[in-house]
Amino acid sequence: MKKLILDLDTGVDDALAISYALGSPEVELIGITGTYGNVLLDQGVRNSLAVTDLLGHPEIKVYKGLPHASAADSFAVGEASAFIHGENGIGEVTIPDSNREPESEPAIDFIIDAAKTYGKELIYVPTGPMTNIAAALRKAPETADRLGGIVLMGGALTVPGNVNAWTEANISQDPEAADYLFRSGTPATMIGLDVTLQTLLTYRETQRWRDLGTTAGAFLADMTDYYIKAYETTAPHLGGCGLHDPLAVGVAVDPTLVTTLPINMKVDVEGPTRGRTIGDNDRLNDPVKTTKVAIGVDVRRFLNEFMTRIAALAQAAG
Amino acid sequence: MKKLILDLDTGVDDALAISYALGSPEVELIGITGTYGNVLLDQGVRNSLAVTDLLGHPEIKVYKGLPHASAADSFAVGEASAFIHGENGIGEVTIPDSNREPESEPAIDFIIDAAKTYGKELIYVPTGPMTNIAAALRKAPETADRLGGIVLMGGALTVPGNVNAWTEANISQDPEAADYLFRSGTPATMIGLDVTLQTLLTYRETQRWRDLGTTAGAFLADMTDYYIKAYETTAPHLGGCGLHDPLAVGVAVDPTLVTTLPINMKVDVEGPTRGRTIGDNDRLNDPVKTTKVAIGVDVRRFLNEFMTRIAALAQAAG
Repeated sequence: MKKLILDLDTGVDDALAISYALGSPEVELIGITGTYGNVLLDQGVRNSLAVTDLLGHPEIKVYKGLPHASAADSFAVGEASAFIHGENGIGEVTIPDSNREPESEPAIDFIIDAAKTYGKELIYVPTGPMTNIAAALRKAPETADRLGGIVLMGGALTVPGNVNAWTEANISQDPEAADYLFRSGTPATMIGLDVTLQTLLTYRETQRWRDLGTTAGAFLADMTDYYIKAYETTAPHLGGCGLHDPLAVGVAVDPTLVTTLPINMKVDVEGPTRGRTIGDNDRLNDPVKTTKVAIGVDVRRFLNEFMTRIAALAQAAG
Repeated sequence: MKKLILDLDTGVDDALAISYALGSPEVELIGITGTYGNVLLDQGVRNSLAVTDLLGHPEIKVYKGLPHASAADSFAVGEASAFIHGENGIGEVTIPDSNREPESEPAIDFIIDAAKTYGKELIYVPTGPMTNIAAALRKAPETADRLGGIVLMGGALTVPGNVNAWTEANISQDPEAADYLFRSGTPATMIGLDVTLQTLLTYRETQRWRDLGTTAGAFLADMTDYYIKAYETTAPHLGGCGLHDPLAVGVAVDPTLVTTLPINMKVDVEGPTRGRTIGDNDRLNDPVKTTKVAIGVDVRRFLNEFMTRIAALAQAAG
């Protein structure tokens, strides 16, 4: 059975990504590694523990990753992140803290060990900055060949960014790490704004979770409504919120949800377009392409899978 | 029979584009409209007249377009253009001036009239800045619906630009005109650096033209060798020269040479990334896509068509 590791900066759509993974019987979520971005590392780890408890899966282990980019001394949450995800990361909804602690093994070592144990069965799904996976690949380069693959949420190839006209938020946090990943030869599928801004959720769908009458359903609905409301300010033309992180999990479970362009990618790390994800001209005519970028998505089928899986989970969790 | 208008700033690859069109029995080249870019407008018009004469087709009429972008007062040839195409635009090869003059009808009016006359049969192929077609669409907006389509050489969606990291040369000359075209709803196929840097020519192929022993063959070989030599300096990693403009003609003749992504495009006209071609988020989820961007090309088949058609023409021209 396919094994997943989710690498999360647990905000709203990260919590939905956890829900999608837990609602997918085809895969086993073998752990969550924590990163920073939507929230600070510790807040994200706290959210991952609390959300897995609430969703009825207290067996899911959570590992602490690195608290900031290797090129930076620290990390502070951006204003836009706090606006979109709430100060607490989960739409200002209050849920009980878990009585569990994160694992003592660092996230980097857990990733390296899991690749050794599970090999091609393992799909690693980072939905924040690529800091942890870049560190794991530097520490144990053989991980690139061992892993079944990476499905990352981040970047924007054919559309503008969401931090500025050329940079997507996850990549902006650590452009060097994403560039390292793309150039490492690790097989990766990039789920960027190209497709995630096509998969939109509205209040109509969250109401279906609320109507389940369960604690989990109410939590998911209230949290996501906060996120949809933020989108009404930041991207009113969309008419809903982008399902960024859940789409990456969806593709990890079923790659046929998207159509992809095989292309060797890089990240601009210097100059005015720092943080832009773009094809690498130096490897344009290399017959081997290690990255696939999603450029099309079966919106209807994904939304149907998303709603079915998460509703079933929220029903069962009570 | 499909009718083509080529809109050219006749440099080296523009001359190869003329050759490809004249060597294609499936299409009729009904005229060349002149623009600026690789050379000044007048030099390009002079080159188009001289090259069509040399290739045995003095019946091809040439029309003068606009000499600079509407947002500019004048145009001067850039250093890079002069280096790549030579000061005279055709690789410093000397060929006789034509004794013909350009037509008295302005290019803009010729385009508008041709769209009226030929309608869906007509494909317009701009391989320089989009200044002329934008002016034609502003003067006669109904041209957008009348035309069979536009196959433009310009832009870069999935790879960096060639003027700077985000701008391709043709778009850089007149970003406003290209933006106007993309937003006009005119059906257009963008043949950008994404694909034209995959279709490369080397000295091995130009020698085959020289070996024909004809004046036309020697001209094409000498001119293109100058261009290949420039690429050895500007883009040594490629190992050849990009067949930018001929690929646009190739696709106008046979659209199956490329795979395309349907996406509504725009050009950044403000900010640090002025001149970048990118998807328009405001129209990302619009079910109607008026632009197709080439993201893949059948390199072997195109090169074979390119060599076969141009060799036959250079043989027949003597």
